[in-house]
Amino acid sequence: MIGKSTIKLINSLALKKYRSKEKLFLIEGDKMVKEALDSDLNIEHLIVTSQFLARYDIEQTNAVRHTEVDERELKKMSLLQHPQNSLAICELPEKPEFPATLPDGLSVYLDGIQDPGNMGTIVRICDWYGIKHIFCSPDSVDLYNPKVIQASMGSFNRVTLFECEFPELFALAQKSNTPCFGAFMNGENIYQQQLPQQAVLVMGNEGNGIRESVEKLITNKLSIPNFSENNVKAESLNVSVATAIICSEFKRSYSK
Amino acid sequence: MIGKSTIKLINSLALKKYRSKEKLFLIEGDKMVKEALDSDLNIEHLIVTSQFLARYDIEQTNAVRHTEVDERELKKMSLLQHPQNSLAICELPEKPEFPATLPDGLSVYLDGIQDPGNMGTIVRICDWYGIKHIFCSPDSVDLYNPKVIQASMGSFNRVTLFECEFPELFALAQKSNTPCFGAFMNGENIYQQQLPQQAVLVMGNEGNGIRESVEKLITNKLSIPNFSENNVKAESLNVSVATAIICSEFKRSYSK
Repeated sequence: MIGKSTIKLINSLALKKYRSKEKLFLIEGDKMVKEALDSDLNIEHLIVTSQFLARYDIEQTNAVRHTEVDERELKKMSLLQHPQNSLAICELPEKPEFPATLPDGLSVYLDGIQDPGNMGTIVRICDWYGIKHIFCSPDSVDLYNPKVIQASMGSFNRVTLFECEFPELFALAQKSNTPCFGAFMNGENIYQQQLPQQAVLVMGNEGNGIRESVEKLITNKLSIPNFSENNVKAESLNVSVATAIICSEFKRSYSK
Repeated sequence: MIGKSTIKLINSLALKKYRSKEKLFLIEGDKMVKEALDSDLNIEHLIVTSQFLARYDIEQTNAVRHTEVDERELKKMSLLQHPQNSLAICELPEKPEFPATLPDGLSVYLDGIQDPGNMGTIVRICDWYGIKHIFCSPDSVDLYNPKVIQASMGSFNRVTLFECEFPELFALAQKSNTPCFGAFMNGENIYQQQLPQQAVLVMGNEGNGIRESVEKLITNKLSIPNFSENNVKAESLNVSVATAIICSEFKRSYSK
């Protein structure tokens, strides 16, 4: 049985303010909860149905405590429209220390990404392409927003996300003579570029793109060419889709 | 003033059953409604706020009739969480006739895509890459689902979507000796393939991938290699993200 105060706590974790205050965040969905149980995350409270318990031995895991509920109860506390059989209240990891040097390989900077689905999808794409360091502007959507966690499909726990203004990252890039690429509507055709292994890639906000103060520091502007032959052209690609295509271009020459 | 019966009609158009019965579908969002007004879609009823009317001359357009409402009223009938200033009830276009020959270039076949956001995003990607013909299995989510329309950002009206079982498309492909590619977890590294200009590309369902009966007919299996170095690897890419990367690979050699 779950008390009203726990349900209230769970609901409050939809908001960054309460996640920061309580130092907690939520993971939902059986696959992701199972992955969290096998990870180094600290799980404060695991709330599961008998179906989940029947399929998974939680005694062997890192959950501090667990409560069994029925599906109706879980639905009441879940933030999902279609909850599954589990929900984990986890300790919010400490913010990572800003690195002293630019990480090797490709680093991604997100300039004001607002949509949690896009943020989570981008984290998942970076994880796939072995990009372990993501930087984002302080006004970007929070990594521990439940919808970001959901869309990242577990990848949130395999990348490190640093929050900073772009000039801080730019300073690191300059120290190692690393070029800063950015995605624009009017950049160079990405398919005709020689893309280096060591680079910073900046992706902009859904509606407004990369802000002017950041654009000034970009050394190479890239575009994904539009192949549409209609008079009325497709206007743009979604930012997570564009991130996928650009990361693919940066990485394709290095695939084994 | 909008009557209860119109609000009921609008709500019913969330379901395919009622879209088929009424031969109507919904477009929401100012940008998309404006685009619809300039297109050859038949708009039965345009419902807008004064803000929309102030910015757009609807007398010059193809809407049969329009009603002005206030924001509160629009919110009541909208299917969106954050409605803007307009909603268009449109005539459902006739189903396109199945082609006698395979279209030139790349054709995409969607095998049981269920998520409307994925379907809409894939339509938008195809539009961007000049892929004008999309085929999908009869159990795929409907193109005129309001969430598909929303995610396609207007692209739904620039591509033609045919519903068919895969063998019908495969027969067309065979007639012109066109290879059928499919996205799998265990296929050939896509970055090491010579991809032809004329091809069929099959993308599978979110959870289950390409079904076995379709897999048997695939001539070339493709995979996007995973670059993750962790012990725990990113498990997969979202199907719309994978579609974007694969379409990009098919088209990149032909960009001007």
